[in-house]
Formats: sequence, C-alpha cells, structure tokens
Amino acid sequence: MKDEDYMQLAINIAKVGIGQTNPNPVVGAVIVNDGQVIGIGAHLKAGEAHAEVHALQMAGDKAKNSTIYVTLEPCSHFGKTPPCADLLIKSKVKRVVIGTTDPNPQVSGKGIKKLREAGIEVDLGIMKLQADELNPVYYHYMDTGMPYVTLKSAISLDGKIATSTGESKWITGERARLDVHMYRQIHDAILVGVNTVITDNPSLTTRLPNGNSRNPIRVILDSSLRTPLHSNVIQDDLASTWIIVNKSVKQEKMKPFIEKGIRIIPIQDDIRSIKNVLKLLVENGISSVFVEGGAEINGSFLKERAINQVLTYIAPKLIGGKRAPTSIGGNGIEHMADVFQLSVKSVEQLGDDIKIVSEPIRLG
Amino acid sequence: MKDEDYMQLAINIAKVGIGQTNPNPVVGAVIVNDGQVIGIGAHLKAGEAHAEVHALQMAGDKAKNSTIYVTLEPCSHFGKTPPCADLLIKSKVKRVVIGTTDPNPQVSGKGIKKLREAGIEVDLGIMKLQADELNPVYYHYMDTGMPYVTLKSAISLDGKIATSTGESKWITGERARLDVHMYRQIHDAILVGVNTVITDNPSLTTRLPNGNSRNPIRVILDSSLRTPLHSNVIQDDLASTWIIVNKSVKQEKMKPFIEKGIRIIPIQDDIRSIKNVLKLLVENGISSVFVEGGAEINGSFLKERAINQVLTYIAPKLIGGKRAPTSIGGNGIEHMADVFQLSVKSVEQLGDDIKIVSEPIRLG
Repeated sequence: MKDEDYMQLAINIAKVGIGQTNPNPVVGAVIVNDGQVIGIGAHLKAGEAHAEVHALQMAGDKAKNSTIYVTLEPCSHFGKTPPCADLLIKSKVKRVVIGTTDPNPQVSGKGIKKLREAGIEVDLGIMKLQADELNPVYYHYMDTGMPYVTLKSAISLDGKIATSTGESKWITGERARLDVHMYRQIHDAILVGVNTVITDNPSLTTRLPNGNSRNPIRVILDSSLRTPLHSNVIQDDLASTWIIVNKSVKQEKMKPFIEKGIRIIPIQDDIRSIKNVLKLLVENGISSVFVEGGAEINGSFLKERAINQVLTYIAPKLIGGKRAPTSIGGNGIEHMADVFQLSVKSVEQLGDDIKIVSEPIRLG
Repeated sequence: MKDEDYMQLAINIAKVGIGQTNPNPVVGAVIVNDGQVIGIGAHLKAGEAHAEVHALQMAGDKAKNSTIYVTLEPCSHFGKTPPCADLLIKSKVKRVVIGTTDPNPQVSGKGIKKLREAGIEVDLGIMKLQADELNPVYYHYMDTGMPYVTLKSAISLDGKIATSTGESKWITGERARLDVHMYRQIHDAILVGVNTVITDNPSLTTRLPNGNSRNPIRVILDSSLRTPLHSNVIQDDLASTWIIVNKSVKQEKMKPFIEKGIRIIPIQDDIRSIKNVLKLLVENGISSVFVEGGAEINGSFLKERAINQVLTYIAPKLIGGKRAPTSIGGNGIEHMADVFQLSVKSVEQLGDDIKIVSEPIRLG
C-alpha cells in the first residue's frame, strides 16, 4: 500500500473521535512494519492518551524500525500527557509520515524538528487537505480563540421555516431530522433564543435510535430571563442547561432556576452582540456551537458574520405566504454586494429532502 | 445491440425537438436492418413530418424487413400528415418496437392494432419510463386540456429572492442564469405579473451565448393595464407580448399598446383565478408556461396548485431580514398537512449554485 492508503486509514480512524475531543483535535495513527499494520490508535478525549500512544502500545516491541502514519504532527510539549515526539524516539520508530502540522504554537513545527534531530525520517503533508478537514473546530479555535459556529435551518423550497400560522412540524422528513441529531452530538453546545423555548418548548437533546447519544450543553440567550420554569429544558435533567442573561437580572429571579440545577450566566458586555456571547461561551469551555435559531437569533449571527458552517435541509414542499417566517430574520443585509457569501461543500439527498453543507468563502 | 440500446438512441434523437413541437409530442425513431442503422428521424415541428417519415425516407428500400424503434406509438389517423402506421405497413417493416403509447384518444392503441393486423410484430413498453419522460407537456395537455406550468425561482440559502431594500441582481451566478434561458427557450410562454414589469423592467427574452435563441411569448398579467408603455416588453420587438387584462379595461387605454403590436387579451372570467388565465392561454395555443413571478403571482399559482414542475436555483449566500422577500407570497398555505408536496427529480451543481428540479407528488 502507498503512503496515501495508510494515511487514509489513519484519517478514517481519527474520525472516531469527532465531537469527543474538544478543545483537542481528533487524530488517528497507523503503525506499519514490513507491510503489516502492527498498531492503530485514535485520540478519543481531551486529557486522555494521544493517538500515537495507543498505537505504540498496540505495536509493542515491533514498533522498532517501523513507519507511523499520523494525521497531525506529534506533540512535543508536556500537556496533560507527555510529548508524543519523545515516545516515538524512544520506541525507535524509523519514519514518521504526517498529514498536517499542528497550528497550536506550543507544537507547530517543534514536534517535527525534534524527530528529525533524533535521526527519524519525517515526511509531511501527505493528504494534507483531508487531514486539515478533520479538525475545523480546532483550527478555528487556534486561529481566532473563538468557538466554531454551525448554523442549521430546515426550509421549504420556497424558503419558509413554518406556515403563516406558525406550524412547523415537520418541514423535513425523518432522515433529515436524524441527521440533525448527529450534528447535535458532535457540538459542545446547542444555542437557541428564549422565544424558541417559549414557542416550541424543545428538549434540545440528542436522540439517536441506538440510544448512544451524547447531549451537548443547552444554551439559551435570554436577556431578561423569560424562560418558563415549566419548559422541558428546565424540567428534564437529560442535559445541562445554561441561560445567558443580562447582568441586570435579579438574583431573586434566578433562584428557582438555580434550584433546578440550571446555570445562569450573567453577561457583562452587551448581550445583543453575538461575539460577546461567543466569547463568554469559549471562556466557559465551549469550542463549538450548534445554532438552531429562531430567525432573530440567526439574524444576529449573520449580522456579525459569526458563522463557520451552514447546514441547510431543504424539503421539496411549497408553503407560500408573505408572512410565513424564514430562517434568518432581523434587519438582514441591505445590499447584494455585502451578502454573506458561502461555497457549497456538499449536496446530498436524505430521504425526500436535500442537505446542503456550505462554508464562508475564505478571503485572501 | 439490444432493443434497449436502440430505443435509447431513439430517445436521444427525440430530445432534439424538445420545446419545438408543441402541442405535439417529441418523437424519435431509429430503423435497423441486419444490425445496421439505416435511418433515423425526429419530429421537429407541429404540422411537419413525423419521426417515422424522416427515418423511412432515409432508409429507402432497405426499410423492407427492418425493425423500427420509435419512442411513441405511431399514429393511425389523418392529422396534418398521413398516418405513420400505414406508411410502416407500406414500407414492409418487419417489426415495430415502441417506447410508450400515445395518450391521444385518436391514436391510443389504434396504431398498434393496425400494425398487428397487417402482420407486423409489435413490441411495446421498451424503456417506457424514459419514453414517457420525453413529453411531460403533451401528457399533461392530453390529461387535463391545460398548459403545463413550470415555476422558477432563484433563492439564497435562507430563502430570499432579494435584500430587504429590494436588490436582487444577482442572487445566482452566470451558469444558473444561462440555464434559465434554456428553459425559456423550451416553453411556449413566459408569464409574469405587472409588478415585476414595473419593478425590474425585464426583457423576458431567451439570451443564449450562441445566438440560437427562440423567444417564448411574453405574457403579462395586468388586470387594470398598468404596464408602462416605455417598458422593454412593449418597446423592443424581440418577442411577442400579450397582456391579459380585466374585461373592464377601456379600448381607449389599449390603443397605444395595440399600435406597438402588443396583443391585449381581455379575460371574461375572474383574472384572480390562475385556472381562468391558463384556460385563456391554452385556448390561444399555449401549451407550456414558464412562470417567473414575482411573489404574488407565484402565490396565485400555489393557491390553485396549478404547478407541474418547480425549478429552484439556490445560491450559497445568506441575506437575512424579516422583510426581505421570498419566492412565494400571497396568503400561503396555513397548515403543514396541506402544503404542496413535491418530490425531487434531480439535484445538480451549476457553478457555485445548486439547481433542484421537483414535481408534485402524484396521488393515487
């Protein structure tokens, strides 16, 4: 097998960890000696063993003179675990093939340097594009220090998210709705506005048919703490719920929520600015946010262009109506020259519906 | 080659005539003798020779003992041309392979019966589905006596057709816009409301880069004749323009339009009912209508569910805005149980944009 084939295996293995490793990247490793795979590994949770460690452990003594394929540059610093570069040297690995470099300034290039200084052959950038695509959240976080935002909407072919009377169950079919739950599972938080809680009383949990669901933190933007106490997000204890409120909200008003185990986070800056909200979230350990609206909240994200991925499910239905709501409200962008430009990453049919994944066009 | 291979050739040949043969169907024919194609033909224009005639002419004497593959049952009646079944018998064709039957009661089954009575072997339904798909306009017209309606819209990923300030140039890119022109070319008429004429002053002509463009008739729904005299659709003479008005509009008001060669058609029935409008159009020889809005007109078509095909171009852009317009206005459908259900026929990327073709789900 070619280097690319082994790297593809390492990439496939890395994917096992998607959504589980934040704020760490997902990483996969494959160790080969004499044309035989002798060890595989993936990073599965921040604070736990790196991919290389698992793979070397599996390989044991056979790691000597082997080639390791690893999707991301091995670390060279003491974090929560000892540096992988040192371990590779100690294991007498002959060659290290790396998918892409680590943008973390504590690692970037240093792991490679250390390996080469120890006489290990290092090849870099094998399937770099695919290796980069494993970690959009991590890269965004390293670049900007902010959480990665996925904006989701489900619309009819004429762009409506509900009828003019407000009915919205269901625009899309079962397969599309299941897909949404898979996205919930891989994000740190789901964010909605209080109006969505009041109108729809959603659970905002991950519900997958096999029962293996990981629930993100439910974050509600609610400046004056209007969330009804009887809402599902307050009453069920299926997932953590955080409510971001204005600092002017009285302690007395928060009390019944806190008694139910809800975390109320008063924001010091203007709550109307999404960037302030995202900053607060990242400070509280959230590195990816799944935004499920409604229209006004989505409008706030668009206004500040704080969107990294747009997930659109389109149902082949016509609803019509000048007053029927659309996915992004607010004031909107006034001029065509200024609209938020995306590029399509994938188009897929899911049952009767169509799923479009798009990303902002990177300038420069 | 198998029967299916030859029928596929006949289907490909039939497609040459799409948009040109209304109200007739498109038909393709391939004649084979001893494994060699000896004649091909297509129906290209109503009133002119049928596909079989062209193919037999090309085959000449070699047609004797041959097999003819024809996408639609040969006609058996004297229309504008003599019956093809008779001609096939006269040419001593041995076997006739037919894609699908003709829904025209003057033909249906009769052509086949005539051929069989003459001792010709007839095989029916080879690639029937593909043969049926050649003629949606014809089938709809035969079924209902009404024109086939294609509803077109170009929207952003959040369902907008313009910004909140009304800017709409351009939502989609060049390739999608070119595609729209190809659809214009194959419809008998383009229909818009007078508000679109007033706001956008469109030409509504077919503009293809090779210059080989056929212009459909431009139909404007304009109950009180508010179309500005200086509009492109009145001033240019690139295509015919018909304006459908209420019967109450005074002759005096029509005069300057008629002097410009515009056809003003007063409607006797309620102009607000799209079915009345479509009936008027079919009575005037229009068998397919390309609806290009705006939102209110589209809403009228949706209200009466007078839609046979929905063409949606989706641009990967976010525009936002509670007041930004969407493709289908009016009152819309109130309840999710009643929304107009479609099924997706194809999804395609056209440059940066996505094209979705869908059709109403046929019940029963």
